[in-house]
Amino acid sequence: MTGRLIRIIGIDPGLRRTGWGVVDSDGVRLSYVASGHVASDASDDLCYRLRALFEGLSSVIASFKPNEAAVEETFVNDNPRAALKLGQARGIALLAPATKGLAVAEYSPNVIKKTVVGAGHAEKRQIQAMIGFLLPKARFESADEADALAIAICHANHRTSPVARAARALREAAK
Amino acid sequence: MTGRLIRIIGIDPGLRRTGWGVVDSDGVRLSYVASGHVASDASDDLCYRLRALFEGLSSVIASFKPNEAAVEETFVNDNPRAALKLGQARGIALLAPATKGLAVAEYSPNVIKKTVVGAGHAEKRQIQAMIGFLLPKARFESADEADALAIAICHANHRTSPVARAARALREAAK
Repeated sequence: MTGRLIRIIGIDPGLRRTGWGVVDSDGVRLSYVASGHVASDASDDLCYRLRALFEGLSSVIASFKPNEAAVEETFVNDNPRAALKLGQARGIALLAPATKGLAVAEYSPNVIKKTVVGAGHAEKRQIQAMIGFLLPKARFESADEADALAIAICHANHRTSPVARAARALREAAK
Repeated sequence: MTGRLIRIIGIDPGLRRTGWGVVDSDGVRLSYVASGHVASDASDDLCYRLRALFEGLSSVIASFKPNEAAVEETFVNDNPRAALKLGQARGIALLAPATKGLAVAEYSPNVIKKTVVGAGHAEKRQIQAMIGFLLPKARFESADEADALAIAICHANHRTSPVARAARALREAAK
């Protein structure tokens, strides 16, 4: 089942800090390419904060040229004000890859944890330990970067499922 | 107080339909330039829907070359899922002008209604009647367009207030 090397960017959206992680997958093996975060200045107007995130992500995508992108489906808690704020950052995280022609998959936090660690309620440090195991060369300084790598790993795993391959084939055929 | 002609775009964000309206202001008089909406196809993936809104708004801004932009501050109701969805569209409405170097002002629905009609709880048809009075040449087909014009009118009014002028002067000086 090894095949064409696919480069995936995972994005963990946040207005203050948006984490990103890039991995290569040949369908079986994964390898770490790079990770980091783009930040916005809390003292700036909202429109300029969103622009900083968009330009930062766009430049990461231009540098590493991923083939596909994945973004975490945001956990909607009971605070609508926080949901609106996160939604704005999340819109940017979806837009930046889409403007470069990349398809963007979305995965819920539970699916990401279940895929990476095997349990839907894994703790942060279990996820980070598993990333260290799957991507021994990975170097990440923050939880946002680790989460972004987990999202990329999750997509690498799911994109090769029969359902995902059939859906892609249908999309290609419809073009 | 008449002065330089300023062109303002008002934007009423929504994932399905985002309304826009462009007006010119010389500090006293307003005149209608154009209005419309950009839509996204509900059957598309979210990332492509956001891209459609971004590209649509970017092309409107490129065509009409406004100097300033204003977006409605979203009313956060008690549905976090709806707030997240609207937040994503709103992020795009703020980003599109910012990527063209425009400052984006934000006004709450109550401030917009109070400015345009004189009452914070005005009904849609009162707002539309007042737009017809202030912008006799305005032609709009939908409530989104009317709301976007109301946002532009609101900004035209507030940007000439002493406080707004002082804030602009400070921003310019800090550049």
